[in-house]
Amino acid sequence: MTVKAYGAHAADKPLESMDITRRAPGQHDVQVDIAYCGVCHSDLHQVRAEWAGTLFPCVPGHEIVGRVSATGAHVTRYKVGDLVGVGCMVDSCRHCADCEDGLENYCDGMVGTYNGPTADAPGHTLGGYSEQIVVDERFVLRVRHPEEQLAAVAPLLCAGITTWSPLRHWNAGPGKRVGIVGIGGLGHMGIKLARAMGAHVVAFTTSESKRQDAQALGAHEVVVSRDAHAMAAQAQKLDLIVNTVAAPHDLDAFLTLLKRDGTMVLVGAPSSPHPSPQVFNLIMKRRALAGSMIGGIPETQEMLDFCAEHGIVADIEMIRADEINAAYERMLKGDVKYRFVIDSATLGG
Amino acid sequence: MTVKAYGAHAADKPLESMDITRRAPGQHDVQVDIAYCGVCHSDLHQVRAEWAGTLFPCVPGHEIVGRVSATGAHVTRYKVGDLVGVGCMVDSCRHCADCEDGLENYCDGMVGTYNGPTADAPGHTLGGYSEQIVVDERFVLRVRHPEEQLAAVAPLLCAGITTWSPLRHWNAGPGKRVGIVGIGGLGHMGIKLARAMGAHVVAFTTSESKRQDAQALGAHEVVVSRDAHAMAAQAQKLDLIVNTVAAPHDLDAFLTLLKRDGTMVLVGAPSSPHPSPQVFNLIMKRRALAGSMIGGIPETQEMLDFCAEHGIVADIEMIRADEINAAYERMLKGDVKYRFVIDSATLGG
Repeated sequence: MTVKAYGAHAADKPLESMDITRRAPGQHDVQVDIAYCGVCHSDLHQVRAEWAGTLFPCVPGHEIVGRVSATGAHVTRYKVGDLVGVGCMVDSCRHCADCEDGLENYCDGMVGTYNGPTADAPGHTLGGYSEQIVVDERFVLRVRHPEEQLAAVAPLLCAGITTWSPLRHWNAGPGKRVGIVGIGGLGHMGIKLARAMGAHVVAFTTSESKRQDAQALGAHEVVVSRDAHAMAAQAQKLDLIVNTVAAPHDLDAFLTLLKRDGTMVLVGAPSSPHPSPQVFNLIMKRRALAGSMIGGIPETQEMLDFCAEHGIVADIEMIRADEINAAYERMLKGDVKYRFVIDSATLGG
Repeated sequence: MTVKAYGAHAADKPLESMDITRRAPGQHDVQVDIAYCGVCHSDLHQVRAEWAGTLFPCVPGHEIVGRVSATGAHVTRYKVGDLVGVGCMVDSCRHCADCEDGLENYCDGMVGTYNGPTADAPGHTLGGYSEQIVVDERFVLRVRHPEEQLAAVAPLLCAGITTWSPLRHWNAGPGKRVGIVGIGGLGHMGIKLARAMGAHVVAFTTSESKRQDAQALGAHEVVVSRDAHAMAAQAQKLDLIVNTVAAPHDLDAFLTLLKRDGTMVLVGAPSSPHPSPQVFNLIMKRRALAGSMIGGIPETQEMLDFCAEHGIVADIEMIRADEINAAYERMLKGDVKYRFVIDSATLGG
């Protein structure tokens, strides 16, 4: 089936309208009519070939929500009309320890929602900036939010799970003091989720102008990280920090805020390395510096269900498909609160 | 009481024989006649003022074993004649969360066995290169090894607990694959302990010449870290790495050997930072880079009891006190298998 999409034919070309094909649903496949797709910074990196190995044409998008329009004969969990989501991956090896543990995101055979290997034309996966996608039901998530919230659910599929997974894995909850570094697409979800989990949330930003926003998002405290006095007041206070800032920065300034046995989890990879952290700051309080990458399918469903129950969605700005190139430029300047979402109805022009 | 010791009067002076005073035992104190004291690399750093804040005269030594020669009126756990040990600390605040958890080593008020604050003359603590030491019983450990092993027990008080603590905390044991990086004073204990805990032990060394030694110490596998092929064969194989190498080196070469959720624990702090590790290597498999510093009193006792039960001691080379300056030079060249121990009977000259 031919469907409308938005993508780029080369790294130095803008995104434009294009026709792509989707396979007919196989026995285990769910065909999703995409309603909305969030715009992640990864989309920009991939489509501009800032990461190695971009295959063209490139159709980005891995924060997908929509409605099931067809199902294969052996699909058991979804039926036509269901509200569903698709996140950062559409397949994995399905038999390694990671897959068996429901952490398909760490599987060496994980297939990204775009730019991943596939038997479908054109030989690599094409993402959610499109009218339709066909995915094995194992990689489809149920959306239990009310339909009117659907657009704002889309960013949960990447920004939401990317912050949820480390918060959950490192036990954010009542009695825990959790720092969220950076208040952008990921950070604003981190604040909302950590707050809803019952943690005491301290948001860190380089910008005084974000103080009120961070409070509105749910932060109990907001610290401007350029304020040495305010930073010193947080020394050894935090159990966990989820650091969403991908730009190279001084990790020690945050490591020293951790209690004994505290962990700072990096969820963004900088293009050039952070300054090397002082080993002393790790040794002195048995602290850890860790990383986390999106999340597995079961925990993504758990996150979506939690968000539906708690009325949590992303803060979004809806755009038309033909505004995507301009949106990328604004995203580069941090000029979005906090996630662009493409209205898939505009893909047809 | 005046006792013989070995120490330095200035950073640029060799260690020499000197007289120091020890307090009379207070109500909770144990007076220990020191039999042997291990020689730790930290001793050299401190006495040469390579670390900030060395106070002179400096008497190093925090791997102390000996026999109780007097006890205060309120001492309940030790009696004259008991074999005991004293490790890296002789006091702490005793009421913070760390102290309450038996992790006095992480207490901000921890008092080191040498160069720490004290009311005793000369105003800072003097360590185990001496005939006697007086310590509150809370910081005294029981030695259950046979007396003929006593000299080789000494290094357990620092090298032993420094590797035991992370092995225990990160659950080394049956079914786990544990890497030990560096085969020196710390590493040789790490191999012995991890093996006795039931883990599969992979030792990493830069030197082919240490292969047989590492096997004799208990390593199931030995990898020469300059051998790219051998390193690649360990990729994603290890649950835990205890990295004992303080010299700056490429951490990524070892981080990539960790399985998903694996941790590399640094127990040595380099004087200049390691090259900055790739965040990508942490994120891709939810790995962690952590630090650990010696260990608490309860776990030190646990380690000593475990070692007594399993017949584990350090591999040592006994020296006379007047050989200490030469021993430091040999230690700097890595020319010791694997720990020098001073025979305290030679302190008198």
